Parts: sequence; structure tokens; C-alpha cells
Amino acid sequence: MKKLINQTDDILDEMLEGMVAAHPNEIKRLAETNVIVRSNAPIKGKVGLVSGGGSGHEPAHAGYVGHKLLDAAVCGEVFTSPTPDQVYEAIKAVDGGVGVLLIVKNYSGDVMNFDMAADMAKDEGIKVEQVIIRDDVAIANPEDRRGVAGTIFVHKIAGAAAESGKSLKDIAELAQKTADNVFSMGVSLSPSIVPASGKPGFELKEDEMEIGTGIHGEQGIERKTLKPADEIAEELVQNLLKHMDIKNSRIALMINGQGSTPLMELYIMNRKVSELLNEKQAEIKKTFVGEYMTSIEMAGCSVSILKLDDELEYFLH
Amino acid sequence: MKKLINQTDDILDEMLEGMVAAHPNEIKRLAETNVIVRSNAPIKGKVGLVSGGGSGHEPAHAGYVGHKLLDAAVCGEVFTSPTPDQVYEAIKAVDGGVGVLLIVKNYSGDVMNFDMAADMAKDEGIKVEQVIIRDDVAIANPEDRRGVAGTIFVHKIAGAAAESGKSLKDIAELAQKTADNVFSMGVSLSPSIVPASGKPGFELKEDEMEIGTGIHGEQGIERKTLKPADEIAEELVQNLLKHMDIKNSRIALMINGQGSTPLMELYIMNRKVSELLNEKQAEIKKTFVGEYMTSIEMAGCSVSILKLDDELEYFLH
Repeated sequence: MKKLINQTDDILDEMLEGMVAAHPNEIKRLAETNVIVRSNAPIKGKVGLVSGGGSGHEPAHAGYVGHKLLDAAVCGEVFTSPTPDQVYEAIKAVDGGVGVLLIVKNYSGDVMNFDMAADMAKDEGIKVEQVIIRDDVAIANPEDRRGVAGTIFVHKIAGAAAESGKSLKDIAELAQKTADNVFSMGVSLSPSIVPASGKPGFELKEDEMEIGTGIHGEQGIERKTLKPADEIAEELVQNLLKHMDIKNSRIALMINGQGSTPLMELYIMNRKVSELLNEKQAEIKKTFVGEYMTSIEMAGCSVSILKLDDELEYFLH
Repeated sequence: MKKLINQTDDILDEMLEGMVAAHPNEIKRLAETNVIVRSNAPIKGKVGLVSGGGSGHEPAHAGYVGHKLLDAAVCGEVFTSPTPDQVYEAIKAVDGGVGVLLIVKNYSGDVMNFDMAADMAKDEGIKVEQVIIRDDVAIANPEDRRGVAGTIFVHKIAGAAAESGKSLKDIAELAQKTADNVFSMGVSLSPSIVPASGKPGFELKEDEMEIGTGIHGEQGIERKTLKPADEIAEELVQNLLKHMDIKNSRIALMINGQGSTPLMELYIMNRKVSELLNEKQAEIKKTFVGEYMTSIEMAGCSVSILKLDDELEYFLH
């Protein structure tokens, strides 16, 4: 395991210190927590947005704390849910008097701990709503789908809506609509290594890829011989389009790198994905190519498609 | 070699198609070239900025084509200088009547080919100035120093100055001042693989790192056992401060990922680098942490420090 780290126990703490050192005017760390909040939190009269989860997905989620995005991110240890008390501290820190929306990826630990924190905050009189993100179509049962890169669309749309002064109820509905309209699927070429274990999360042969792998290396749909980029793009798009009808629709697209895949390759993927979506007569209004939701140093990418309406498009821009 | 590509011969072409597909309103590709230009080029009355070099360093340089940045990027094959005729086409495409500045990293092929292109353009009556970037202090002789991540500061500062309407002479001087005041050094933990060869550019043992490696895997200063991040940060900063006096100075800092190093690790590096620079009583006015000048999927990072004055700070923001 080759990593630019010191002691594995200190990774989260030191990462957060390094983030705040990089952006001292924009963000701060809540004392004695692993919560990053906007420097000017709480913002009176503005709905607070809180997300979070295990670390190792940077820039998710602390990198999305800022103007027209999140008000706080609760950072668990690597690939480990944050505790309810830390989520609770985040909620309290960003409540500007008009309530807080929690944006939660669908993992049992995250859902449970954010829910407990929501209850604690409600007991204090804070209005709290939650939206659970389930965009990973590698899982057949919609209720069991994992939250992956599509979460970032929710951050961006809900963030812009909150900044514009919308109410908690309206933002929660908008976030839910975004979550309902975004679908993602990934492909992995190599595993990630959780620092505390020092071992790869799974094994792939030298010529293998895995379609549908989760952002913590959870098992995907199929493991097979590595194919050319265009064939992988076709397979991912075909899978996504089983879940959404994009013909004559406006969409937003994200080609997300999992951690160690060069931007060059993500653009090569985007070329084919865009072409396929154009063939389906979808109108791509906005494309994101880059590392938005990573899995430490996993190689591979995911494709997320968000079907837009006027409201979603307005707040995405 | 596991990469999300099709045929190795098509990589550059397909990458550029994928970039334009992602940002069709912002950039376009000049017909029958590997040149990316701003959609609205040439901008009448504005100095045009052209950079470029071998591909494999994405987002450098085509990712920096846009508002307050470059007007064109000339993209060679992976780790291969672009040809003079392509640079010449770029110059012609972005000349708004008041001249063009070429921002060139100090590699013999790049310097020669941009120089030939400049001569061709001057023969056509276009005013052309050049600035050569030599920020990599891993090379002892200043004239021989390679251009690495510090180049991005030149893009940003010259780009903002050009957008503000400054003259070619003023922008060339400002770019030169930036180049004179920026110093960089890197560390590599693993090599990159040029697709056409399919083989790693160099070999490192499982517990080794190399200090001072170039962005194409050129030999560094020393190969030794991997150290904790804090010790690596100290070594890089010590080397950089041999070349610059930052006491009581304002600086800008870049912690640049080489391609496959997680953002988490870059922040851990930033924590220590920032601390060391603060101890030297430097005032860090702006920090960039991320992948700005990569080396395909090389693991590791570089640290760049730019010493600021009022003018550089103004245009950096």
C-alpha cells in the first residue's frame, strides 16, 4: 500500500485540517467534530443543507460545502458512516431558523444515523427533512439501490434552491424529484485500498473489469474481460436506459472518475456516451466530466443521467 | 495495461471529441487539427493566449481554454510535442488583431515547435510573444528546468490580464514575472503508462518513491524508501525554499495530484506544507489542491509555490 499519509488513525483528522487550511475563508471545522461547515453558518433565514457519509469519496462530501451547495458535511472514517451525534451537531450548526434538509446516500448505517440525528434535532425544535439517494441501478430492487454519484446533482440543485430562499418543504420536494430522476451505473478496473486494512477491497484479474461495482467496492452485476471504452459505454447506457425514458427529453450527464482514472479516459467515455444519448434524441443540457464521487484510488468510472424539467434545469445552472 | 480507451491510435482524437461534446458552448476544435479554441475566438481587441504540449497532462492544457484563461491549447499526442503547423493554426485562430502570447513549458520539442510557429505567424504580420516556463527545481541548472504545474499559475494570471484588456507587451511581462516567481517539485509513488507503449515509464519497488520526478516520468533527484506524508512535505518544501525567500511574503500554493493520488492524500500533504510555510512567516493568500497538471495515471503529487506581489495577487483572484 503506497499512500501519501502518516498514521492510518490520523487520516480523517489530517485530511480535514488540510481542507480547512486550503480554504480558510470558505469553510471551518466544528470544534471537536469531523464536521465541515460554511464559515458563515448558520445563515439566518436560509434552509441548511447537510450531507455526509464515510470518507474516501472526496471531493464528496466536504468539498461541496460552499455557496449554492451544502452548508455542512459530516465526515465518517474511511468507508464508515458518521455517528448520529456528529450529524446532530451539523444540523444544529447550520439551522438558520427555517429548517435543515439532510441528503443521505442509501446505506444502512448512514440512513440509520442520519435518522437518529434528525430525531434528536426535532426534539430540540428544529425542522428537519430528509431525502435518501438511491441512484445505482446495478441493484435490481429500487428500495435497495445504493446512493452514488447522482447525489452530487442533488447537492447542486437543492443548494441553488436553498440559496434562492425557497422553503424547507419546497427544497425537500425538489431534492426528492432530483433523486427520483437520476440513475447511475459504474465500471471498475481496479479496487481501492482502505488504509486501515491495507488490502484491496476485491481482486480483479489483469484483463478483467467489473460492471456495476459500488463506490465501496461492493459487488456489481458481472465480471468479465475488459472491453474497449465504446463497448463499456454502450453497456452502461443500455443499463441506464432500462430505467428511464429520455427520448425528446432534456438531460444532464455526469462521467465520474472513481479515483485513479485519467481525465483523458473519462473524456473518451464521454464521447461515446454523448453520442449514444444523442442518438436517443435526448438533449444534453449540461455535462460534468471529472472526479465528483470517488472510491479512494479505484480505477474506473460511473455514468449518471439526470432527466431534467424546467425547474431542475433552472437550479442546475 | 487497463485503460478506458479504444484503439491507442485514436486516443487523442477521441479525447478531444469527448471534451468538445462536454462543453459545446465554451470550446470548439479547429477543423483538421488537434487544437481546442474558445468558441468565440478570435476576440477582437483581446490578446490571444496559446499554450499546449503533449497530451496526458489533462486538464492541462485544453481544460484551461475558457474565460479568463487560455484562448487555445495545442494538443500533441501523449507525451509528444505538437507540430509547428498546429501551433501556427492556433495562433491564427485566436489573434484578435493585438497579438498572441505563447505559454510554453521548457521541453526542447515544445520550445522548438512553438518557436517555429511564432516565426511563421510573425511572417504573416501577427505580433507574437513567448514565455517559457521552467519551474521544476529538481533540475539544478535554471536554464534546463522543466515546465510543470507552475504553468497553471501563468495561465490563470495571464488569462485574467488578457481578459482585462492589457496589451501584449504588458501580459508578456506579467507572464514572465509569474514564471520567474514560481517553483515546483514533485514526488512519484508509481509510474505512468504511455498507451502506445503499454509499459510503465519507469519502475519503483513496492516500498519506494522518487523525489523530483518529471511529469513524463523523467528521472528525479533521489529514489528512496517511502516516507510518511509529513516527511515528504518537509523534503519538498526544503528543496523549494532553497530557491525562494518567502519570509514575510504573500504566496499562492498548489498541491497538484499527478493522476491517481486521491484528493484525501493531497489534503494531508497540504496540511503539512501549509504548516511549514506558515512557520516561515509566509502568508498563503490562495491554495489550489487537486489535479491541475497530471501525468496520466502516475501516483504522487507536486508542490508549487508562487511568490506574489500586488499585481500577481490581483490577477490570480
